[in-house]
Amino acid sequence: MSNKRRPGRRPGSADTRGEILTAARKVFAEKGFDKATVRAIAREAEVDPALVHHYFDTKEGMFAAAMQLPITPDQIIPALLEGPREEIGERLVRLILQVTAAPETREPMVALIRSAMTNEQAATMFREFISNALLFQVANRLGVPHLRIEAAFAQMYGVIMGRYVIKLEPLASASHDELAELLAPTIQRYLVG
Amino acid sequence: MSNKRRPGRRPGSADTRGEILTAARKVFAEKGFDKATVRAIAREAEVDPALVHHYFDTKEGMFAAAMQLPITPDQIIPALLEGPREEIGERLVRLILQVTAAPETREPMVALIRSAMTNEQAATMFREFISNALLFQVANRLGVPHLRIEAAFAQMYGVIMGRYVIKLEPLASASHDELAELLAPTIQRYLVG
Repeated sequence: MSNKRRPGRRPGSADTRGEILTAARKVFAEKGFDKATVRAIAREAEVDPALVHHYFDTKEGMFAAAMQLPITPDQIIPALLEGPREEIGERLVRLILQVTAAPETREPMVALIRSAMTNEQAATMFREFISNALLFQVANRLGVPHLRIEAAFAQMYGVIMGRYVIKLEPLASASHDELAELLAPTIQRYLVG
Repeated sequence: MSNKRRPGRRPGSADTRGEILTAARKVFAEKGFDKATVRAIAREAEVDPALVHHYFDTKEGMFAAAMQLPITPDQIIPALLEGPREEIGERLVRLILQVTAAPETREPMVALIRSAMTNEQAATMFREFISNALLFQVANRLGVPHLRIEAAFAQMYGVIMGRYVIKLEPLASASHDELAELLAPTIQRYLVG
């Protein structure tokens, strides 16, 4: 991150997007997800807020880009809600397994979770992002109590940690089909009842 | 930890137990749970292996004491298996919630999990302990596939992390009764089918 002051506002340049993301990481870490504003991120990056909006439609999208998350809530939520309600458990399980299967998409998420586990500021940032950008949205669109969505989150969080971080066997080498068969009814019950 | 060599074997003294535990932490961290032996721990502590056996009946018990875990698999497994099979899901959920409710019993477990999340050696130690001393035992005694026990573990792991580390609301302030109602059928299904 450059701390050099430059005269006036910088125009959009090849690395402006990268500089906004660097500023975003700093502001999200310091303020959490809820209190971070586009204005504060623009100030930190020394650019006009309009330029931040030019690169990133939403704060959620900017957070996902800053943390190098492979998928944003804007992509997950429609993929989850589209299709028959009686298959939503299986859709969610397979979506999470697919998104986390490749190391290059999984690692940024695991990195975010690791820092949330060991650092109070990072935990606040992760909690606010997961709650407000993902879990509350899903709860509200499905009309399901938040606690049930969090139970589903807890199940999949534990599966991904057990599979890729603790590396429990046979969980780590189970196929998506095996896991979907086992876990989909759990998620279905939480999300639909 | 003292590295001073002393002449000959030390007799059991006021802090022998503590010195064995210090040695155990070092050997478990270096070798993992499976490969750590009473003999290696005794050598590290510079005591006779018989003295280690005098203080700790089992390697599981020594590991639990070394990590300051409030409860050993020897205590969890009978508490879980005792009583009607059709209530095992609820018994497991309430047992885990009770054991993790007080900070002084929860914190050593969270510390162990934190280090497993961020350190490969600690992850190996945690995986081997959890698998061999707890999950495989429960799977074998219940005659249930290991993957189902790991799904139950993943659910409760996610709940405890969500509740106490990420501090998701309403999960963090939900009552034991609310959580038992929501989670017990999940665990029941995994453990009994």
